[in-house]
Amino acid sequence: MRKVAVMGVGNVGSTVAHLIVDHADADELVLFDARKERLKAEVLDLQDAASLLDRHVTVSEGSFKEMADADVIISAIGRIDLIEPGGDRFTELRANKPSAEQLGKDLKAAGFKGVLIAITNPVDVITGIYQANLGLPANQVIGTGTYLDTARMKRVVAEKVNLDPRSIEGYVLGEHGDSQFVAWSTVRALGKSAEQLAEEFNFSLDDAEQAARQGGFDVFAGKHYTNVAIAHAAVSLMNLVLSDARRESIVSHYDKDLDSYISTPAVIGRQGIVADIDLDLPDSEYAKLKASAQTISEKTQANS
Amino acid sequence: MRKVAVMGVGNVGSTVAHLIVDHADADELVLFDARKERLKAEVLDLQDAASLLDRHVTVSEGSFKEMADADVIISAIGRIDLIEPGGDRFTELRANKPSAEQLGKDLKAAGFKGVLIAITNPVDVITGIYQANLGLPANQVIGTGTYLDTARMKRVVAEKVNLDPRSIEGYVLGEHGDSQFVAWSTVRALGKSAEQLAEEFNFSLDDAEQAARQGGFDVFAGKHYTNVAIAHAAVSLMNLVLSDARRESIVSHYDKDLDSYISTPAVIGRQGIVADIDLDLPDSEYAKLKASAQTISEKTQANS
Amino acid sequence: MRKVAVMGVGNVGSTVAHLIVDHADADELVLFDARKERLKAEVLDLQDAASLLDRHVTVSEGSFKEMADADVIISAIGRIDLIEPGGDRFTELRANKPSAEQLGKDLKAAGFKGVLIAITNPVDVITGIYQANLGLPANQVIGTGTYLDTARMKRVVAEKVNLDPRSIEGYVLGEHGDSQFVAWSTVRALGKSAEQLAEEFNFSLDDAEQAARQGGFDVFAGKHYTNVAIAHAAVSLMNLVLSDARRESIVSHYDKDLDSYISTPAVIGRQGIVADIDLDLPDSEYAKLKASAQTISEKTQANS
Amino acid sequence: MRKVAVMGVGNVGSTVAHLIVDHADADELVLFDARKERLKAEVLDLQDAASLLDRHVTVSEGSFKEMADADVIISAIGRIDLIEPGGDRFTELRANKPSAEQLGKDLKAAGFKGVLIAITNPVDVITGIYQANLGLPANQVIGTGTYLDTARMKRVVAEKVNLDPRSIEGYVLGEHGDSQFVAWSTVRALGKSAEQLAEEFNFSLDDAEQAARQGGFDVFAGKHYTNVAIAHAAVSLMNLVLSDARRESIVSHYDKDLDSYISTPAVIGRQGIVADIDLDLPDSEYAKLKASAQTISEKTQANS
Repeated sequence: MRKVAVMGVGNVGSTVAHLIVDHADADELVLFDARKERLKAEVLDLQDAASLLDRHVTVSEGSFKEMADADVIISAIGRIDLIEPGGDRFTELRANKPSAEQLGKDLKAAGFKGVLIAITNPVDVITGIYQANLGLPANQVIGTGTYLDTARMKRVVAEKVNLDPRSIEGYVLGEHGDSQFVAWSTVRALGKSAEQLAEEFNFSLDDAEQAARQGGFDVFAGKHYTNVAIAHAAVSLMNLVLSDARRESIVSHYDKDLDSYISTPAVIGRQGIVADIDLDLPDSEYAKLKASAQTISEKTQANS
Repeated sequence: MRKVAVMGVGNVGSTVAHLIVDHADADELVLFDARKERLKAEVLDLQDAASLLDRHVTVSEGSFKEMADADVIISAIGRIDLIEPGGDRFTELRANKPSAEQLGKDLKAAGFKGVLIAITNPVDVITGIYQANLGLPANQVIGTGTYLDTARMKRVVAEKVNLDPRSIEGYVLGEHGDSQFVAWSTVRALGKSAEQLAEEFNFSLDDAEQAARQGGFDVFAGKHYTNVAIAHAAVSLMNLVLSDARRESIVSHYDKDLDSYISTPAVIGRQGIVADIDLDLPDSEYAKLKASAQTISEKTQANS
Repeated sequence: MRKVAVMGVGNVGSTVAHLIVDHADADELVLFDARKERLKAEVLDLQDAASLLDRHVTVSEGSFKEMADADVIISAIGRIDLIEPGGDRFTELRANKPSAEQLGKDLKAAGFKGVLIAITNPVDVITGIYQANLGLPANQVIGTGTYLDTARMKRVVAEKVNLDPRSIEGYVLGEHGDSQFVAWSTVRALGKSAEQLAEEFNFSLDDAEQAARQGGFDVFAGKHYTNVAIAHAAVSLMNLVLSDARRESIVSHYDKDLDSYISTPAVIGRQGIVADIDLDLPDSEYAKLKASAQTISEKTQANS
Repeated sequence: MRKVAVMGVGNVGSTVAHLIVDHADADELVLFDARKERLKAEVLDLQDAASLLDRHVTVSEGSFKEMADADVIISAIGRIDLIEPGGDRFTELRANKPSAEQLGKDLKAAGFKGVLIAITNPVDVITGIYQANLGLPANQVIGTGTYLDTARMKRVVAEKVNLDPRSIEGYVLGEHGDSQFVAWSTVRALGKSAEQLAEEFNFSLDDAEQAARQGGFDVFAGKHYTNVAIAHAAVSLMNLVLSDARRESIVSHYDKDLDSYISTPAVIGRQGIVADIDLDLPDSEYAKLKASAQTISEKTQANS
């Protein structure tokens, strides 16, 4: 049986839990949150849906003991209310850091040996904090990173070239934050490079990058949170782990050369990161990646 | 192609929209909301998820013109913020009534001839208001009614008899509100009647009914809204319409004898209600149903 | 991870395997067949489909060693070619009995402790043979039994009353063979009993029972096998086991009173049959059930 | 509502129909076959599965009148029995050509204006025959072409580099037949070109191409037909059409420069081919594509 736990049932965590139940992506789902009333409400709302869905999933509240033998734990805790519109995900660090430290320690004490997937922001830093406190190999602790940003880039490029976003290849790399960048060298569609597409369809790559970023701000400004796309990103990663898929995905994971958790594509399987991918980036893009890792490091220190 | 519109992208409407996109239950989804920033944010969040999902759904903002040729429109507008915990769904009537009247008129003017499914509360009244203003046959305008309450009853009975809720048959009838009741004559599981189950598994039917009701309050108290189960209820009805399923479902629909929109099971297909079901209730339950219809009528007048 | 094995990749087994891969109902699927070329072909055809499907499933050939730790094994071996049109499923017994005995022994020797679901005919007898040779508790060895026959009955009744088959309740009980019968006391639709439906919609219950039976012959006559519906029946049972659903289903399982494997509804969960259901049949139907058990016993002896 | 027809319910057509019903990829499915008993059997087997599946699909037998208003028709007729193991798909041409001509004419007479997707072999020729006889624009008549061959190539490369086949990009181009070729210039995985992969993982591209081809022979030798992967290929194309996905896919379609139906990637949407893709192949690969088109032309004449 596949057992999954979700920590934090705010807007993102509850959407993650809903997707898991709706798709029956796990056989047993444990939800955890310090807000007991909210937690009970989410469990009940999901359980109320059971007879409306085709497949059985056992949903329950649980704590460290119940989460200890999960195959995957998803961290969706957060204090998004601390972020001002237009503000930085690092604003959340002061609140989320001690939480992640404590949760990591408690899960370690309970004996958790599975894969942890962090959505909690600033995700690159938080993923590292979880890894350190869980005492698990670096490959078993990963973050959604720029998965959502990559999806946004695909949406924007797809609009420019009048194509389904599923037909756009490529990645946004680096920090899930301001220092991220579209690695245009990886972007392809219709058999063409990003530069060729920009010329043929008459758009600017800089504008496209800016539009993808702006989309994130627009979602945040209109909803005060983002839940749909980010929840799918987390659940996608989870499914790759649960099925030992050995599939390539953009993901925040530990990069030895950069000595940072940061997003580049990797191969995901049962143990989290099961193979590295060397993208062979052009120098200009690798410089951006290094600079992004540096930003993560600096902001981490400034907000610690 | 299947075209669906969702009016109102609050907690419920956005969850409905998300389910439709995630399952590809429609080919074209139009979202409508007076709050332009919120609307834009929801459309973007759904579009951002596209490359993470297997199937293509075209999601866009739209108004009456774009909704006019929809096969199904789901009304998820509402002012749930007006309801105090423990309060009554009729508190929303003053705000939702004029909205439903106007939307109904505008959709009629735009030429809408499909099926409208109302989630908006108080749903039995609002469904009737939509029907009157849309000028469509009564069978084409339906409400989620006690679909969610029925699911809650199944959850509670399932717990009592240690069974999957999908294996519980039966209905909560009447108003989606305080005068609703479990029609225990319709409830069966394990080849047994409700009374036999209560005796064998040693529980009180009254307590079970109260527990199901309390579950609703607990969800509301903890989340300040309910979205997961109610969204599935609405989408289930929608799918029965879109596929012309001719499947039995609990649904709020116009009952000629009771002269009210009220929930009893009916057969759902392409034209909404495609056949009536005469449940042949025991006198005591039919009396409760009549009383519930009376309550709907009285509250409607008191809040108009 | 969910591990499932399918023994026998003829028309039924290959369709079962295809459904499992298509739905990603298991994470690891092991196929087994004595016909090595056929087996290799099925594995390859399923593997070729991988990049066309959304989810990862690891598909491989395997033998007893690889099947030993499966959560569920489905037996789809058979010699349907031995059955003449209009003939009896017992014709297959002489060929299938020694196969089931040997497979049961080999799986026991390999240490299999999961749930075995038999489709192989005559299924009630074969299920018993597997149980005896596997040395597993009776609840862990089950058969598809009259699951398919029940589905056929629902199709026929649904046509008579112009409803979706999903809205018909009830069961075909007894032998998956000539002595089976529709337990009309269990059949309900539109809030009515079978007798009420027959009167209101002007059809004969005997004719309906005959039509359902004839449907099976028509499928066999036209295709020389049945695969679609029976495969779904087996996979449905499998999913109930894998998710520990505790859901009611018609299933061939050991009945202590009748001292036979025979189909009546039971509650299915992780350990196979997790609770019995006492249908409280009218005397006339219970007599038919007893007679059907007797038939199974007699035919078994006549064909041994 | 989405209406689809499948012509030919042999091994491939019946698997296509099964997938459509299982996924509810259409609301109405019409099956057509000259073999009346077989046709009736397939319809019944699918209808028998209805109550075992979550979603309603109306399945029926039909002829040209019932197929005329389908959104998509899939041609799965064929005489695979005419092919000797190791033989050529052109052996089927003599039998399939007059059938496709007649079906095309009959559908034209009935007024069919949708998209036709051909699986029938030799598919590049047959697709052209359908187009000519249907009198529809070339973009509305397409074939599965090398979709399956591409999937096989991905399987083989994925094995070589120990990755999920979903993470391999690239195409097999040309004839769905002996003159097809892997366009290695389009193949990428792990951020690397085919040549880089071959070097890093120590395999020969020629061997990989041969292994993919051999896989097809192995499936055919072991099963005497291929159904799983090819059925998914056809249904994938169908879903792109039904949802107007504008997604890139390998597909057999009319190439003006080569004056042939032949497989290269194109953008699929509601009208079939909705945009061309210029792959900008290296000269050596374009030469192979031209040679393949020439082969199609020559074989067509030799077998006419």
